[in-house]
Amino acid sequence: MNRLAVVLCLLALVSQGAATAQQAAARGSAAPKVVLIIGDGMDQQQITIARDYIAGYDGRLTLDTMPVRSSVQIQTVAEENPSMPEYVADSANTATSMATGIVTSAGRIGTTAATDRDMPTIMEIAAAAGFGTGIVTTSSVTDATPASFVAHVSNRLCEGPRAMTAADANANAVLTGNCPEDLVASGGKGSIAEQIAASRVDIVLGGGARYFAQVAEGETKSTVLDRAIANGFRVIGTAAELAALKRGGKVLGLFAPVTMPVQWRGAGGAQARRVEHDESGRVVLPEPFACEPNPDYGATPPLTAMARSALAHLDGRSFVLMIESAAIDKQSHVRRPCGQIGELKQLDDTLKLVLEYAAAHPETLVLVTADHSQAAQLVPETSWLAGLNAASPGYFARVRTPEGAIMGINYATNDSDVQEDHTGADVPLLVYGSAAKEIPATVRQTDIFRIMMRHLGLGVPSTSP
Amino acid sequence: MNRLAVVLCLLALVSQGAATAQQAAARGSAAPKVVLIIGDGMDQQQITIARDYIAGYDGRLTLDTMPVRSSVQIQTVAEENPSMPEYVADSANTATSMATGIVTSAGRIGTTAATDRDMPTIMEIAAAAGFGTGIVTTSSVTDATPASFVAHVSNRLCEGPRAMTAADANANAVLTGNCPEDLVASGGKGSIAEQIAASRVDIVLGGGARYFAQVAEGETKSTVLDRAIANGFRVIGTAAELAALKRGGKVLGLFAPVTMPVQWRGAGGAQARRVEHDESGRVVLPEPFACEPNPDYGATPPLTAMARSALAHLDGRSFVLMIESAAIDKQSHVRRPCGQIGELKQLDDTLKLVLEYAAAHPETLVLVTADHSQAAQLVPETSWLAGLNAASPGYFARVRTPEGAIMGINYATNDSDVQEDHTGADVPLLVYGSAAKEIPATVRQTDIFRIMMRHLGLGVPSTSP
Repeated sequence: MNRLAVVLCLLALVSQGAATAQQAAARGSAAPKVVLIIGDGMDQQQITIARDYIAGYDGRLTLDTMPVRSSVQIQTVAEENPSMPEYVADSANTATSMATGIVTSAGRIGTTAATDRDMPTIMEIAAAAGFGTGIVTTSSVTDATPASFVAHVSNRLCEGPRAMTAADANANAVLTGNCPEDLVASGGKGSIAEQIAASRVDIVLGGGARYFAQVAEGETKSTVLDRAIANGFRVIGTAAELAALKRGGKVLGLFAPVTMPVQWRGAGGAQARRVEHDESGRVVLPEPFACEPNPDYGATPPLTAMARSALAHLDGRSFVLMIESAAIDKQSHVRRPCGQIGELKQLDDTLKLVLEYAAAHPETLVLVTADHSQAAQLVPETSWLAGLNAASPGYFARVRTPEGAIMGINYATNDSDVQEDHTGADVPLLVYGSAAKEIPATVRQTDIFRIMMRHLGLGVPSTSP
Repeated sequence: MNRLAVVLCLLALVSQGAATAQQAAARGSAAPKVVLIIGDGMDQQQITIARDYIAGYDGRLTLDTMPVRSSVQIQTVAEENPSMPEYVADSANTATSMATGIVTSAGRIGTTAATDRDMPTIMEIAAAAGFGTGIVTTSSVTDATPASFVAHVSNRLCEGPRAMTAADANANAVLTGNCPEDLVASGGKGSIAEQIAASRVDIVLGGGARYFAQVAEGETKSTVLDRAIANGFRVIGTAAELAALKRGGKVLGLFAPVTMPVQWRGAGGAQARRVEHDESGRVVLPEPFACEPNPDYGATPPLTAMARSALAHLDGRSFVLMIESAAIDKQSHVRRPCGQIGELKQLDDTLKLVLEYAAAHPETLVLVTADHSQAAQLVPETSWLAGLNAASPGYFARVRTPEGAIMGINYATNDSDVQEDHTGADVPLLVYGSAAKEIPATVRQTDIFRIMMRHLGLGVPSTSP
């Protein structure tokens, strides 16, 4: 997005957001609340795959009961030339669109493409208005999606102090930016973990303890976690502490070193693999497998438990709460269909809980969406051209569903052994709440910011760039 | 769908369809009209690809202006065991779901899985109620999608008299059924072309002249076209005749031997191809190309012209009109991105025209949907793992858009040289009309039948099986 476009965008925001929180109160509405649920990589292929497994081909997810649907146009621009689009996004630029209302380049967190200006996030604006704010994720809380709601760096890899100086901070050639320039010593705001530690967010729950254990910038021994505690955060780290959480103050819950474990895996660890061929060249399809609980899940608090605690913590006033099921994307990247199905189930179970909250608090707007599309495709379990010895050219799994049939799941965006690429299709937006019917059937991802701001009665501060 | 399910389904239909056309008239509503627009294979990947090319990354299609969106759960059952799902559909069973309200097996046209019973279609029910009916397609009018609204055969390949006896009628192992059993001499209704010729449909426009030129069952010289003329069809075959069409009577327009030519192609005929490697094994991506008009299109009438003629022909009374852009699917099967984009543009242009009609006739319900998902994926134009020499394992195209950026389009559901498989994701449903807001945000494909029947005030005849 070029400079003119940024200005025009902000002008539009100011005019649309003219109703302030005070005016909303004056209109007699109860304290408005927003819950934004993001399924990372949760496109329509992933939803159909999960529904077929969890609920059956004639069944329904909680997602399927949402009253209003829209489709979200994903937008990304090139770092080198922000007037030029890129047609496939990453989780950083997409979350930045939802959190700040701007279009930016892949890898950026709360900053503009090329010009690297910090854009105010809905959580910052809401906190400044005295509203509650919360972030819940199954990923590291410093990962791209949660980070975009609270931090401003040029590169999603700037997760903790070590990445700010390490030589390999920019190893991933996809991503733009330069962590050292985001050091406080360079005039930046420091790493994502340090920005979370310095933030006003009321409750932050997820993984990422590793980044908070690192020595903070400018210190010799004191860690990022020490900084968070000094800034008023109570720190918890177990499901038991989460269950016993008392209200009040700020809470930082870190339940895993980086990403939290996923709930499901393929039986015995099965995942998609390349199709094999016998001596005569005939296709040998992989054996079907079912899903089973991940034995490494242990006492990890599920997304429902984190969401329930966050809602209880924020209840009683206006708030904006972002809840992410992060590993739908991560498991699809590494071709693990049961992992992605189980993490979509975590999201669906959490949505059920959030809808119960919203039913009791009708001033709540619930949005469920994805940030971008992903690689997995539901395909015939044997190709319709199997008679011609045809099969997936990529990674392929056959998953036996509880209703006894077999799903073919194909991963073939690239031929690496490492992971899949994202895809560029629009993603779903599902909405519950009194204002839901006013939402157009097709929106841009930046509109999600405006929809949330409008519901909260918030305008953009005049200090924004 | 098993027998009990069929009975339950019909009971539900009868209760939902209790309001008859007469009751609708008594309620004072103007003659209700339904236009069902089907983009064959038009899933969210195809729509995004077409939007990015036609309107740009910040642009809008007419599709994007539709006021209400739903998502359609696609359902297919196994022919051998109709209580068991298959998770990927074909155009025959999906169109049958929309046309008759039942779930059936792949390849079936207007008939039940395993039991092979004929199910009444919305066009047959509407015609019996004195309503107008119309079918418009860029495919052969005997192809699976249009056929399912007017015919009943066990196998979509039973398109004309020759297929009913030819040894290779069932060459495609995917498809179920046995054309010879559908011969009139065997107690069936004959080929699809013969059933169209014998039908009450008011206007049928598309390709497929080849099938109508075949000698009809039981004749020595008389063709299916002769039968159609004897049944009151005026027959036309050129764009000029279409433009000069006078109202009244029944019209059969056949503008191509089989499928009509598509409007666009890749520059110089370019299409997706396998990624190559140089002597040292490094990936050599295909050269980008833009889209251009297909030089073979000639004087083919566009979908807009056929739709305009059909609306004019049916205007003035209640009607149900199905309009299909068929080659979004066919071009995606054969990995031609420009072909699929151009055919989606045909659909979008036609939707604009239909919305203008609906604005002037507010008793019109407009539904736009797809029958099933397709293979094409919008992917990064160079893989994010290009540094690891990664690229598509399937067929890949780089399409240069009018805004100067490059789209990567990947086809990799199977490794054959022939064509791609379908995929199984939900497809979009977009709705315009006074009743649009009542449509749930997630529906089953069979609900589309019920939505149309309800709008027309039609119940299911008590003579249905």
